[in-house]
Amino acid sequence: MADRPNTPLLDTVTVPADLKRLSDAQLHQLAGELRAETISAVSETGGHLGAGLGVVELTVALHAVFDAPKDKIIWDVSHQSYPHKILTGRRDRIRTLRQKGGLSGFTKRSESPYDPFGTAHSSTSISAALGFAVARDLGGACPEGLGDAIAVIGDGAMSAGMAFEALNNAGHLGKRLIVILNDNDMSIAPPVGALSSYLSRLYAEAPFQELKAAAKGAVSLLPEPFREGAKRAKEMLKGMTVGGTLFEELGFSYVGPIDGHDFDQLLPVLRTVKQRAAGPILIHVLTKKGKGFAPAERADDKGHATAKFDVVTGEQKTAPSNAPSYTSVFGRTLVELAAQDDKICAVTAAMPDGTGLSLMAERYPSRCFDVSIAEQHGVTFCAGLAAAGMKPFCAMYSTFLQRGYDQVVHDVALQNLPVRFAIDRAGLVGADGATHAGAFDIAYLANLPNMVVMAASDEAELKHMVATAAAHDSGPIAFRYPRGEGVGVEMPETAEALEIGKGRMVRAGKGVAILSFGTRLSEVMKAVEALEAKGISPSVADARFAKPLDRDLILSLAADHAALITIEEGVVGGFGSHVGQLLADEGVFDSGLKFRSMVLPDAFIDQASPAEMYDEAGLNAADIEKKVLDVLGVAQISGKRA
Amino acid sequence: MADRPNTPLLDTVTVPADLKRLSDAQLHQLAGELRAETISAVSETGGHLGAGLGVVELTVALHAVFDAPKDKIIWDVSHQSYPHKILTGRRDRIRTLRQKGGLSGFTKRSESPYDPFGTAHSSTSISAALGFAVARDLGGACPEGLGDAIAVIGDGAMSAGMAFEALNNAGHLGKRLIVILNDNDMSIAPPVGALSSYLSRLYAEAPFQELKAAAKGAVSLLPEPFREGAKRAKEMLKGMTVGGTLFEELGFSYVGPIDGHDFDQLLPVLRTVKQRAAGPILIHVLTKKGKGFAPAERADDKGHATAKFDVVTGEQKTAPSNAPSYTSVFGRTLVELAAQDDKICAVTAAMPDGTGLSLMAERYPSRCFDVSIAEQHGVTFCAGLAAAGMKPFCAMYSTFLQRGYDQVVHDVALQNLPVRFAIDRAGLVGADGATHAGAFDIAYLANLPNMVVMAASDEAELKHMVATAAAHDSGPIAFRYPRGEGVGVEMPETAEALEIGKGRMVRAGKGVAILSFGTRLSEVMKAVEALEAKGISPSVADARFAKPLDRDLILSLAADHAALITIEEGVVGGFGSHVGQLLADEGVFDSGLKFRSMVLPDAFIDQASPAEMYDEAGLNAADIEKKVLDVLGVAQISGKRA
Repeated sequence: MADRPNTPLLDTVTVPADLKRLSDAQLHQLAGELRAETISAVSETGGHLGAGLGVVELTVALHAVFDAPKDKIIWDVSHQSYPHKILTGRRDRIRTLRQKGGLSGFTKRSESPYDPFGTAHSSTSISAALGFAVARDLGGACPEGLGDAIAVIGDGAMSAGMAFEALNNAGHLGKRLIVILNDNDMSIAPPVGALSSYLSRLYAEAPFQELKAAAKGAVSLLPEPFREGAKRAKEMLKGMTVGGTLFEELGFSYVGPIDGHDFDQLLPVLRTVKQRAAGPILIHVLTKKGKGFAPAERADDKGHATAKFDVVTGEQKTAPSNAPSYTSVFGRTLVELAAQDDKICAVTAAMPDGTGLSLMAERYPSRCFDVSIAEQHGVTFCAGLAAAGMKPFCAMYSTFLQRGYDQVVHDVALQNLPVRFAIDRAGLVGADGATHAGAFDIAYLANLPNMVVMAASDEAELKHMVATAAAHDSGPIAFRYPRGEGVGVEMPETAEALEIGKGRMVRAGKGVAILSFGTRLSEVMKAVEALEAKGISPSVADARFAKPLDRDLILSLAADHAALITIEEGVVGGFGSHVGQLLADEGVFDSGLKFRSMVLPDAFIDQASPAEMYDEAGLNAADIEKKVLDVLGVAQISGKRA
Repeated sequence: MADRPNTPLLDTVTVPADLKRLSDAQLHQLAGELRAETISAVSETGGHLGAGLGVVELTVALHAVFDAPKDKIIWDVSHQSYPHKILTGRRDRIRTLRQKGGLSGFTKRSESPYDPFGTAHSSTSISAALGFAVARDLGGACPEGLGDAIAVIGDGAMSAGMAFEALNNAGHLGKRLIVILNDNDMSIAPPVGALSSYLSRLYAEAPFQELKAAAKGAVSLLPEPFREGAKRAKEMLKGMTVGGTLFEELGFSYVGPIDGHDFDQLLPVLRTVKQRAAGPILIHVLTKKGKGFAPAERADDKGHATAKFDVVTGEQKTAPSNAPSYTSVFGRTLVELAAQDDKICAVTAAMPDGTGLSLMAERYPSRCFDVSIAEQHGVTFCAGLAAAGMKPFCAMYSTFLQRGYDQVVHDVALQNLPVRFAIDRAGLVGADGATHAGAFDIAYLANLPNMVVMAASDEAELKHMVATAAAHDSGPIAFRYPRGEGVGVEMPETAEALEIGKGRMVRAGKGVAILSFGTRLSEVMKAVEALEAKGISPSVADARFAKPLDRDLILSLAADHAALITIEEGVVGGFGSHVGQLLADEGVFDSGLKFRSMVLPDAFIDQASPAEMYDEAGLNAADIEKKVLDVLGVAQISGKRA
């Protein structure tokens, strides 16, 4: 505890109710301690720092004014929820953030009654809050009671269509609902899009040195005196501007913009809203991401996500890497190909760094598009580009591509348009946990007519798959690859297009064949080594394609071996199911084949290291070895699950 | 041809270029003939009438002013594209609309170069048009050339988040792009949502008797004289209003609202825009759905979708039905249950009639929510309702639930919230064709942890499944059922909850077992009848559940029969794949089992009757019979594919 900050006031707080007895001045002090504690905790665990630092005062103010858990505070995406966790009975575990068995990096219903709705994908909070608000008015019930519903959403998250849909519906229903727009002009990358420019104009018109309230919205809320801050309320009204029309046009009362680090603005506004709000109200709060920690404020991404770091210098403690990350292999290969082909272009949904497209944005800015958090639009925008003769790469994480699923089906696959899907974070992702698992994409893509689906087994394969996608101009194609570093294979000089639908034999053995799709191949090879020591020599193949399947390879493996085991980093319905369908159609099962399909289990797996998560999933070398021994009916001397 | 309208001018038009030689007065006449031809055609084929009638003048004006196919006119949803089809070389086939082998009811790239982008699901047009616009400026290429990109989108479609995402991105990029907001205050049902109220206010402020142009938007477009209509342009400017700010805030120039049935407004505005538009521009056009055909104008849904009808009276020619539709069974059962349980509520995304929820909306309006075309929000709104103790039924078509897939995964399944998914239009749907096929939901739902997935084999089963869903309060549950009428079974008096994860034996036979999931059961029974005549007596079971599987039932069927065949109205990755995974895990294949899984083929199937589509899919009685004979190795005397 030597390095821990001095937090005398915070030490007296275990639940939000403890804040009710603090004066406004003490809340100010508490915020300082909460900020220090947040920095200290994240320095030990790594995680999302900047977002939480930006909302320290807002978090304190919300919990001081509202009554959680009866009032439902829903943090959109919830990268910013660490200070909230500290104030809501989880301070004792805050240094387990994002670790195996520890606190989630996101809000989570099963973790705390103060987390009424789990968030992690962007822009869900207003919809969920509206559900709580409507249920409250309909006589719904939950153990903590149903009070106010409050969504706290960033300006980046507000650019997603889902948020617009929710505002549109909430404005129509007219229920009491509080939306706090946390405008830090920064989500992960600087935000793009017309909405962002609009918000900038709003606060250009109303600099937040003085508190201002929009005309229509605040007049109805603020005219009458309230116990504290009555004088301030009058000052607010003096400064009325015409801002906020977009939200007012959608049926919301608008208050703001106000300074989200100034309790003298936050507290009276929140108290007034709590006391007097009738219908839906939007409070526009300006904050600085990374506020109060110089290294984060200075950083390009404002300390969005960080490894463990030194609290004084901000220097991150990362282990040296031996191999390039899959993300960087994709990004670099794409730029190489784009240099030779001016039809290649790329689209990201607010993740230029995470997807490796920042290099493309730097080299070929006119051919690289950040559409903001807008996967639906991003996919169909790519479809339009492809229909007009471009070669678009749609680079999204597996879990976020789920947002554009209908567009993949209806706009891309059905029209057989050559959109290239670069699917990062395939499989289990580690500290981000279950919400970010890339578990479903093989299944939801491989059963689409016209689609080609590849998975890279190592970073060299990925390089070739980028070239394969670039060359495949007759229809859509997807290639998936995991988070993290490659396995350290030698990288080829140039990227070569693979033959569509052809896998490769990795080793010839006998008795049992293992057909791997994706980066489990290295675990397969570890298992083979252990099996060799036991006198068992499996054949191993790298399928490369889940669609179209390499029929010849699969049928010959089935014919030449007593047992065939598939393995993939995905759930049932994907590669193994397609292989099973082929084997059934061809009558291979009729005379007996020991077929097994190793897939992710029927469970959401909580955060841990990827290796630990795959251990829990039963997809590591030991599990593969055990599966082979089981299938062959070989008694095991020992085994972790035996 | 006796009943066909007299169309002397239209008879001279085969492609849009033919319109260039017509005077404005002749365009007016042409519109009248085009309207008559549209009514005549749809009276013979059935289809979407009201939408097309509302845009007759707009269609003529767009093709008179712009240069398709170089200019890309993208009709959102494209229910309104029939007049466009008549003007673009397809008049000779217009009476094959929505028929097997005929014209699609939607725009379709493979049908015509005048359809640059196929649409059918709502709100994709702006994204696609932006793709064309950006590609044009990047040097993209397509055979017809790349000119202007024009999206025509209804006010209902504009409520979807995807449209907002596209506007936001287009406003940011600033490329020349034309969006025509076709505001008929009516999509299928009257539109709901705050955006709709906003649009109403816009034209309340600017009645469309006189042409008005918004201040900022039109000033930059209209100041200089142009050849035709210069005088009119000056009139426009006189009537400037402050409307359109929402779109201007998103970076668009705004012109409107203008009367979409008045060529004196349409033509000069479109000509000016074509000549002078620089960045993105939104033209707000007011139209009447069903315009010019009294029975459609009078109808509640403005003639949205119609059967064949009498051109004089508008009376629809529908065959008498023998059994209730699945949709109505769902709607009525839900209301019965809602009468007994005030926590039951329901959500539709702009389809109160199509989903059968209009009855709920009538009886329990405070518990029935039309969120507008907003499936993403709708699903998460349900998750919020469920978290607050309500029992929400999320009623969506299978194909549209794809829009909310990420929300089903992340907000519902991951949090194990008891949202009830009522999935209509499961399987192949007939005249709406491939874009509306409910082919993927079994696969994309059954592999989600916590999810329960059912399919009704007949209308009585559906009734029980509604009750099962209402009673299942420990997690999410989905039940699917097809478009159209039930099979005519006797309906039970009361809906009884089924045991979760238990199927039912339909008949005991020997040798081969058929395990059916969904309404293929009636085809299975037909096949069994034919097989009995050949001395083969299959066992038949109705699985009821794709998740959780009835392990005992499946393993005993596998143990007691030489062959096991699954059948479902869905693609690979669904029910059959889960059964296959179970059989593999249990080692059932090791000693041989003739396993087959009958699924939808790896192809998008064009419109026809559902029975014809299932014939093409190979899932009808004759196909089942053949599969049984093949599996048993029985030589066939005859067979349609033998």
